[in-house]
Amino acid sequence: MSTNQLNELGKAAREAASALAVAKSSIKEQSLVACADQLRSNSRDIEVANQFDMEAARNKGLSKAMLDRLFLDKDRIEAMAVAVEGIALMPDPVGHVLSDSVRPNGLKIQKVSVPLGVIGIIYESRPNVTSDAAALCIKSGNACILRGGSDSWSSSNLIADCMRRGLESVGLNPNAVQRIPSSDRALVGELLRLDKYVDVIVPRGGKSLVARVQSEARVPVFSHLDGICHTYVDEHADLQKATNIVINAKMRRTGICGAMETLLVHEKLGQTFLPKIVSALKSQGCEVRGDNSVLHLKGVVPATIDDWDTEYLDAIVSIAVVPDIETAIEHINTHSSSHTEAIITEDKGNSDRFLREIDSAIVMLNTSTQFADGGEFGLGAEIGISTGRMHARGPVGAAELTTYKYRVIGTGQIRP
Amino acid sequence: MSTNQLNELGKAAREAASALAVAKSSIKEQSLVACADQLRSNSRDIEVANQFDMEAARNKGLSKAMLDRLFLDKDRIEAMAVAVEGIALMPDPVGHVLSDSVRPNGLKIQKVSVPLGVIGIIYESRPNVTSDAAALCIKSGNACILRGGSDSWSSSNLIADCMRRGLESVGLNPNAVQRIPSSDRALVGELLRLDKYVDVIVPRGGKSLVARVQSEARVPVFSHLDGICHTYVDEHADLQKATNIVINAKMRRTGICGAMETLLVHEKLGQTFLPKIVSALKSQGCEVRGDNSVLHLKGVVPATIDDWDTEYLDAIVSIAVVPDIETAIEHINTHSSSHTEAIITEDKGNSDRFLREIDSAIVMLNTSTQFADGGEFGLGAEIGISTGRMHARGPVGAAELTTYKYRVIGTGQIRP
Repeated sequence: MSTNQLNELGKAAREAASALAVAKSSIKEQSLVACADQLRSNSRDIEVANQFDMEAARNKGLSKAMLDRLFLDKDRIEAMAVAVEGIALMPDPVGHVLSDSVRPNGLKIQKVSVPLGVIGIIYESRPNVTSDAAALCIKSGNACILRGGSDSWSSSNLIADCMRRGLESVGLNPNAVQRIPSSDRALVGELLRLDKYVDVIVPRGGKSLVARVQSEARVPVFSHLDGICHTYVDEHADLQKATNIVINAKMRRTGICGAMETLLVHEKLGQTFLPKIVSALKSQGCEVRGDNSVLHLKGVVPATIDDWDTEYLDAIVSIAVVPDIETAIEHINTHSSSHTEAIITEDKGNSDRFLREIDSAIVMLNTSTQFADGGEFGLGAEIGISTGRMHARGPVGAAELTTYKYRVIGTGQIRP
Repeated sequence: MSTNQLNELGKAAREAASALAVAKSSIKEQSLVACADQLRSNSRDIEVANQFDMEAARNKGLSKAMLDRLFLDKDRIEAMAVAVEGIALMPDPVGHVLSDSVRPNGLKIQKVSVPLGVIGIIYESRPNVTSDAAALCIKSGNACILRGGSDSWSSSNLIADCMRRGLESVGLNPNAVQRIPSSDRALVGELLRLDKYVDVIVPRGGKSLVARVQSEARVPVFSHLDGICHTYVDEHADLQKATNIVINAKMRRTGICGAMETLLVHEKLGQTFLPKIVSALKSQGCEVRGDNSVLHLKGVVPATIDDWDTEYLDAIVSIAVVPDIETAIEHINTHSSSHTEAIITEDKGNSDRFLREIDSAIVMLNTSTQFADGGEFGLGAEIGISTGRMHARGPVGAAELTTYKYRVIGTGQIRP
């Protein structure tokens, strides 16, 4: 595939985006229901294509975890269809009047949500990202350009075809879902520079993919590189809550970006909560790396300076003891990846201060960082979590894939 | 000034931003009142510095218009102080709860506005941008790094000092207002790449400055390159309104970005409105460039293909006759710079369609494109107008210099 072809694809996406931007909510909803139907009626073909991908992946020696991400069967395809139907039923994020005022001269000024335009999505092996991401883009009136991983190539192709046929079946332009028809890695670089036709890029995958996208993109990126999430257990914490929350934040699922990586404990809890939580974590199979104030506890290994900046994504935690909330806040603002941080306390002054002074996309009181998720926030579905500050911060759902325009309604006013 | 020094300056701005981000509304307000006082009490020194700038500018042979932009006297400095006080009195855009919900598990999810961080502002000869932009940043809790034009160097330096002293006088960190202490142009390039310390760049100046910033910036940019604004006079227009609005949109001030550059007229008005508006524009000294359907009128010169993509910023207009609203919309979406476009019509179907299908930051009905201005929109003060789609679109006021974070308030919830 040449640069020219990528340009043509971008141009086609832009054209389809213009039409989809003004499509009625009911048509978008019908198209998504049709997409789900297409996924169901082509389930057998998708399975066959997936077997082809799986075989190639096995021959390449991919890990068991990778193979599991890649794998599709009838149930998983049904789950994809159900997810698309769920997105169909969400409220349309386009056309909302976000603010409304009348000026002294009678001009009516309205801020109205409109689609962003064309979303580039670069992802790895999970083929379901194809339908999830495309559906979220369609719902929010955006065209998408999908660049899936080479491992799931055949499966993703058929899934994208289902989405295109779903659009077509209700009279929408199928080019609103574009798929880069080559796994040539150089094309990823070109997509990242296609600022004429792409408004934003969303990378879905591991750290090396995100880092590459962040460093090369000439268009805005919604992403997070790391999720180095902290929990600070304050001196005024309810220790039973603290124990439950800390265990959940670290151990419920260790591989997600909202998993806690570093625990900060107020020094007044050094004889009470600290030994208990270390022992509880150890008993659940968690490796504990501690600073000097934690090292006297059984089974704790010394944390190195790198530990405070590490996203383990594993059953490992680093623990530091802090003399006061100031130090906790300073530690977090220095080492966090601006993703999600929690304080456990019953003291309103301390919680207010933490929630105000911690500069992360998500700040929490008395709950588990594992809740950092668009679904848990009620966004319906998310395309990712952003730690950037521009436009979208935290979970990126359909509403975050919109921008706005101003509508100014006059009755003949001229400017003096 | 070295790269290292620019880094230090960025770091200092970032630190000051963290403190300013959590400053109380009343303190920010007091600091701005103090800034205004500083401008007044240093008015004489600023005038002297400005005389120095003016002399150098005269020796360089700057145009009369440029010299007028640069010039300050007691009245203009007083106007700057009054503008800063006006910004002081605006509502604080930080700390607003933008959305609020309670999940079935009892978690309270709030989206709260917070400052963006550090704003880089690159501007040309107007020294008042120094106080206006700094004040808007302070109001919205952001630090700023100012890089003014070399022509206004001495004036802008003293004005920036006033702002810093205003901050200091109420106990805020003066480093929230930083000024690049060298007019070395290479430093502009470095500022554009300082993504570690700068969250967004706002260029204020001519097209070549904006183009350079857009092409080199490694950080997001709020800007517009062109304001190729259109007015479409529909077949169902009230022709008296249309005449008043078109004259105003073109001629009130020809040099602002909201000035109309192209007029589209429905062909049914070819014998009525068209000759009258051409004659009215000509009588006000406006050059009229027309397509083939306009050329038969007296004094109209042929429009070339470039005219449809030109921002004249002068008493020149291009006029095309269109057979229907579809063609008008297509012409605009092809040639506009996505800034501001207006339709003049009494037909609700046509106005709805225009307002929906035109993909510009500002779309208007029955009014003059010259209203494309933050002040006219009620934003209080604006730092510029953005034609980009991300984060801020249209007038960029204090609210657009904020982002948000999520506050999640729990009572011990853990994720199942």
